[in-house]
Amino acid sequence: MLIIGERINASRKSIAEAIECLDTDVIKNEAKTQVEAGADYIDVNAGTFPRKEAEYLQWVIETVQEATDYPLSIDSSDPDVIKTVIPFVKKNLIINSISLEPARLRGILPLAAEYRAKVIAICESEDKIAETTKDKLRMAHQLVESVTKEGIPLNDLYIDPLVYPLATNDQSAMATLDAIEVIMKEFPGVHTTCGLTNVSYGIPNRKLINRSFLTAAVTRGLNSAILDPTDTQLFGALKAALLVAGKDEFCSEYLAAFRKGRLK
Amino acid sequence: MLIIGERINASRKSIAEAIECLDTDVIKNEAKTQVEAGADYIDVNAGTFPRKEAEYLQWVIETVQEATDYPLSIDSSDPDVIKTVIPFVKKNLIINSISLEPARLRGILPLAAEYRAKVIAICESEDKIAETTKDKLRMAHQLVESVTKEGIPLNDLYIDPLVYPLATNDQSAMATLDAIEVIMKEFPGVHTTCGLTNVSYGIPNRKLINRSFLTAAVTRGLNSAILDPTDTQLFGALKAALLVAGKDEFCSEYLAAFRKGRLK
Repeated sequence: MLIIGERINASRKSIAEAIECLDTDVIKNEAKTQVEAGADYIDVNAGTFPRKEAEYLQWVIETVQEATDYPLSIDSSDPDVIKTVIPFVKKNLIINSISLEPARLRGILPLAAEYRAKVIAICESEDKIAETTKDKLRMAHQLVESVTKEGIPLNDLYIDPLVYPLATNDQSAMATLDAIEVIMKEFPGVHTTCGLTNVSYGIPNRKLINRSFLTAAVTRGLNSAILDPTDTQLFGALKAALLVAGKDEFCSEYLAAFRKGRLK
Repeated sequence: MLIIGERINASRKSIAEAIECLDTDVIKNEAKTQVEAGADYIDVNAGTFPRKEAEYLQWVIETVQEATDYPLSIDSSDPDVIKTVIPFVKKNLIINSISLEPARLRGILPLAAEYRAKVIAICESEDKIAETTKDKLRMAHQLVESVTKEGIPLNDLYIDPLVYPLATNDQSAMATLDAIEVIMKEFPGVHTTCGLTNVSYGIPNRKLINRSFLTAAVTRGLNSAILDPTDTQLFGALKAALLVAGKDEFCSEYLAAFRKGRLK
């Protein structure tokens, strides 16, 4: 299970403030805390600063890389930003993300190939929202085709079927869960990943729904997630889900987390 | 989702003591509390008193029926006990349970037909433990055949694929989850149910694993469970799982539970 720590995101007020003040301590601390909490990758996002996104993101990248050797997930929807900052990123990075939007495909895939980056690919296009399993699978096929055509191995592809809020479509989580299962079967070697917060948008006690969705997704084959590893209840739910999914031989990861007092 | 409240079980010390002292208050209180907490059926079990099981179970049945109009799930592995107590049970009961053991099939199915009872049927036989999905499905087929041959409608059948402890077989939960999905597809109208505690036997923080397993099972089609509805975290996990599973139109059950302060 590849955990991408989501906390260094400019949509969070404390992060936006730290970026604006170039407060390295806050950013370094967020990076270290997430690594200690179990993140495999540190996501970095400065997307709320439209004109200064590349400049700020480069500073965040350099700051995080001073704090930890753990690899980064470079999070931007702007291909030009990715292109500007990618030379500053150490090896083994993730690009977060491409979609079927032609500008993102054309702008980012050659960079991913050149830098041998892993790629998160979202089942989304400019003109169509993929709400049903069928639509998500159709887009997954198109993404796989585009990525492999560029010479990027399937093993570096992380497909995010994109879950929509349950508040507006009560079948949205099931459509995503079914898509995860089929994608993992149809494309051996490919990975699936998912952000968790969309699913609970507009409903109270969101974290309970996020945990429930993550649990179900892991038992369908999800093998990566973009989440906050310092959220103790979410982390406990993830460890229990991996155990239930038969992905924790001899319960060893679960027991290690228990001994560290991390199962709530 | 049919919730069978499991608390009135003589394997619990407080219940065994109440039964021995014929303490009606304890039993009535357990019945009422579970109904208030959302149970649809009240399970009653006096199985730890081998020679006095029928006598004690009859007393428990009469006591619970004085406390509530909610229907009962009569829980015994002994066909003779079921036969003795069933005339004292009000309509709409569940018999918990049959298995492929010939004595239980022969002893209980005619009673179930006569009293138009719902039946919980466990994927278990005398000589074989059904650890794999394939074995569970084979037994489910045999159970469906036996039950329908007796004239009991599929709609009254609750198949329990029987989950084994993850501590001894790390694929046991997945085998059960896959079985639930296939059973619900292969036999339209049939129900699936499950006890939750087996899965976590021998592992610390059992309730976390039980919640995780229930969550995954509900998103595979499980539409009944034998559980403690007064366990707030488990109840919250169930409501969230139903929402994620697309079985809570307009999030109305989830929101109602939230307003009552029951989502933890």
